[in-house]
Amino acid sequence: MGSVTLGEIAVRFGLTLKGDPNERVHEVATLKSARAGALAFLANPHYKSQARTTHASAVIVKEADADEGDRNWLIAPDPYVAYAKVAAWLTPKPTAPPGIHPSAVVDPSAIIAASASIGPLAYVGPNAVLGERVVVDAGAMIHGHCSIGADCRIGSKVTLYPNVTMGERCLIHAGAVLGADGFGLAMDRDHWIKVPQVGGVRLGCDVEVGANTTIDRGAIEDTIIEDDVRLDNQIQIGHNVRVGAHTAIAGCVGISGSTEIGQYCMIAGFVGIAGHLKIADRVVVLGYSLVSHSIESPGVYSSGVPAQEARKWRRTVGRLRQLDDMHARLKRLERTSAE
Amino acid sequence: MGSVTLGEIAVRFGLTLKGDPNERVHEVATLKSARAGALAFLANPHYKSQARTTHASAVIVKEADADEGDRNWLIAPDPYVAYAKVAAWLTPKPTAPPGIHPSAVVDPSAIIAASASIGPLAYVGPNAVLGERVVVDAGAMIHGHCSIGADCRIGSKVTLYPNVTMGERCLIHAGAVLGADGFGLAMDRDHWIKVPQVGGVRLGCDVEVGANTTIDRGAIEDTIIEDDVRLDNQIQIGHNVRVGAHTAIAGCVGISGSTEIGQYCMIAGFVGIAGHLKIADRVVVLGYSLVSHSIESPGVYSSGVPAQEARKWRRTVGRLRQLDDMHARLKRLERTSAE
Amino acid sequence: MGSVTLGEIAVRFGLTLKGDPNERVHEVATLKSARAGALAFLANPHYKSQARTTHASAVIVKEADADEGDRNWLIAPDPYVAYAKVAAWLTPKPTAPPGIHPSAVVDPSAIIAASASIGPLAYVGPNAVLGERVVVDAGAMIHGHCSIGADCRIGSKVTLYPNVTMGERCLIHAGAVLGADGFGLAMDRDHWIKVPQVGGVRLGCDVEVGANTTIDRGAIEDTIIEDDVRLDNQIQIGHNVRVGAHTAIAGCVGISGSTEIGQYCMIAGFVGIAGHLKIADRVVVLGYSLVSHSIESPGVYSSGVPAQEARKWRRTVGRLRQLDDMHARLKRLERTSAE
Repeated sequence: MGSVTLGEIAVRFGLTLKGDPNERVHEVATLKSARAGALAFLANPHYKSQARTTHASAVIVKEADADEGDRNWLIAPDPYVAYAKVAAWLTPKPTAPPGIHPSAVVDPSAIIAASASIGPLAYVGPNAVLGERVVVDAGAMIHGHCSIGADCRIGSKVTLYPNVTMGERCLIHAGAVLGADGFGLAMDRDHWIKVPQVGGVRLGCDVEVGANTTIDRGAIEDTIIEDDVRLDNQIQIGHNVRVGAHTAIAGCVGISGSTEIGQYCMIAGFVGIAGHLKIADRVVVLGYSLVSHSIESPGVYSSGVPAQEARKWRRTVGRLRQLDDMHARLKRLERTSAE
Repeated sequence: MGSVTLGEIAVRFGLTLKGDPNERVHEVATLKSARAGALAFLANPHYKSQARTTHASAVIVKEADADEGDRNWLIAPDPYVAYAKVAAWLTPKPTAPPGIHPSAVVDPSAIIAASASIGPLAYVGPNAVLGERVVVDAGAMIHGHCSIGADCRIGSKVTLYPNVTMGERCLIHAGAVLGADGFGLAMDRDHWIKVPQVGGVRLGCDVEVGANTTIDRGAIEDTIIEDDVRLDNQIQIGHNVRVGAHTAIAGCVGISGSTEIGQYCMIAGFVGIAGHLKIADRVVVLGYSLVSHSIESPGVYSSGVPAQEARKWRRTVGRLRQLDDMHARLKRLERTSAE
Repeated sequence: MGSVTLGEIAVRFGLTLKGDPNERVHEVATLKSARAGALAFLANPHYKSQARTTHASAVIVKEADADEGDRNWLIAPDPYVAYAKVAAWLTPKPTAPPGIHPSAVVDPSAIIAASASIGPLAYVGPNAVLGERVVVDAGAMIHGHCSIGADCRIGSKVTLYPNVTMGERCLIHAGAVLGADGFGLAMDRDHWIKVPQVGGVRLGCDVEVGANTTIDRGAIEDTIIEDDVRLDNQIQIGHNVRVGAHTAIAGCVGISGSTEIGQYCMIAGFVGIAGHLKIADRVVVLGYSLVSHSIESPGVYSSGVPAQEARKWRRTVGRLRQLDDMHARLKRLERTSAE
């Protein structure tokens, strides 16, 4: 990565520069660790003092935070968004040579764009279709009849079961499994019968799927992840779930079958969502909560209990067990007091 | 998949047909999306109205739901079970050509049935034994001394560590890891010593293991999953656990070492079960519960707290912290009131 | 594994032998299942009666538990630690032949010690450096610029993204993913922008990483796992987390970005830890707890609620919703009573 001038950054990203347009930066850094030549940003007011003492050559800030002095400031309405854009531009994209590595196994019926890259020891099954500039990393397994839009990247050891489709610019991290059977069982007197899972998995464009996340195929119809959905690591998404566009879901979340989540939702880590629910648009669920009923209005929801000293917590749990009894006693006292 | 007549279905599966035995179906569908030629089912009374308006050519229902009119009804005591059987019959099994793909690596000492199929880039280690019609999908890694019964299917990127054995008709989904070391550590003054994990993993027949689920090998003796156990995705099963026959466990459940779970249990999503416990037969644990003590009687158990508006929940958490104090105050008032 | 005399064990591991120094053992076993020729141990007082009836040829115990009789006792201050050491010595190490399996793909620029073993269908990318006796199991994917110290073992289907480094004697179990992108997103009006994740992952020496565990690369600086940290299966560690030396973390734990965990902590299963926190040294968090604030003092912390009968629990949850109201009513009564 070469270096660029602050003037060039300001022009390209529409930022206001307060400082020397000829100063050059060549990397991004945190305020605390930045050296000369680094570009940093201030988004969290908690780090404000570091913006004064940093050795960064320039700092992206809100207008209100651009103080006097000989620091170079790049001013943006949302410094984190501006930082994300500049950093993406400064960071060299991982490149992958077009073509099929000789150790990869590609079914002759697969249709693979000439600009696509199939890495070492990867597999592409029959009738799969891979668009322009798709990168399949080493060891990824793409089964038959999958369809992958332009500019997607499929990480190492990802498994796409048959009939998984995705739009453009999706990023699937290592170890993710898309299209395994949903958990469909019927108890036939004394043993389980497996219910065939014949639906597929459909991802829109710009979807990110974290490492070791699993998205089950639909039982009859498809499991659907809409455009710009962002999934962190180790998430489990059951069959026939639909996740609305622009929703972000943090790590370790589990969503049971047939639940529909709206657009622009934010689901924090470790949330469990029961099956067959509807979650409205713009719902925020805080970490470690259980969602067992549909949520009809936007808002912030929670049921997590913060840890405290175990000794005290044990007493609380004991009292919790008596809560119904406490309520009865309270009622009795109220009656006595009223008399 | 060709089409079949309703008469043929009724005879083969012992269902009562109310309608035209010559009507043909060729696929399964939901009531809502079914077109002519589709077979649907009604199991959840919630969807009863859809059974009247569906375009399905036939619907599997309970006797009580088979209304008059020119709809074709297939009547079954348990429509979901009947659907599962018919759907399995209508759905073409994924086929895999017998033999070893040239890109697979198979140790010469492995014993592999002629009808077994070893997919591209799969590995089978020394002295492994694979029964008739076993299918090893692309990229699965089966280490030495594993034994796999007839008609098992091992998904892509599954890892079987050495000395994992399973009965017949098991289905192991992509990314599952069977036989990694259990978490055995001893603190030797100021650092950890690893306790060797020398047991194995033994699965019975008809076991299903979901994507990215992990089952650790035993510390000394084996970890055991009995017949017809059904495990969803991303479950963690510690060393020396025993899961009883016909038990079903939903996604994201964690079971700590040496716990024994009975037969015909149902463990819902996200349940955490501590180590060294015994759970009786026919225990149901609802989602997002912590099981920290043995359960001796069949029944339904729970400790999940449903999410509510975060603002209200924060007040509740605050009061929860005061619960012991509230109890003391209540007691004091009772004493005063008694005087 | 050949057999060894108790005298040899006593001398080698500094244990006191009460019994026959010429008695031989050749395997480890539990007290309950041991046969002649087996060595067992008694650490949990719960199993004390089994120590009298076991068929083991010798039992490792505390001095206080070494009873009279013709049993052979090996006496240790911490029998579990002594057992771990003896068992490790008795258990043959899995061996792997030095050299590169012909089906592996190794970039010519990678530097691989002659004593290292690269298994079938494994991949080692450009400029990776693998030390003496490193074992890369079948199907592991090691991307470019990774650095792996002597005596590490990388399990099947592990993915190391570029720029992951580790010290010596680390053990990474199958399916683990180190170095996937952290979950860094900025909302740009109506859609997400990905924040480049340019940091790496750094592991110290003697780190163990469980099956299907994920450790994200840092956003700007590195994610750091210090010496002798022990991670169980299916743990999720976010970007820029630091885990202090000798800390052990059980299965299914999730740690959000930028949190720092001290040394000698023990985090039980299913614990969720929010981001940007500091956890002091020697903190113990019990299973199924949510840590949403920094913890400044050593001690035991908890917020898990044990499951009870669902019928009772539903009433408790109902009362929990009324807790704030109950508090108000209690206060009112106190006021009335005071008057």
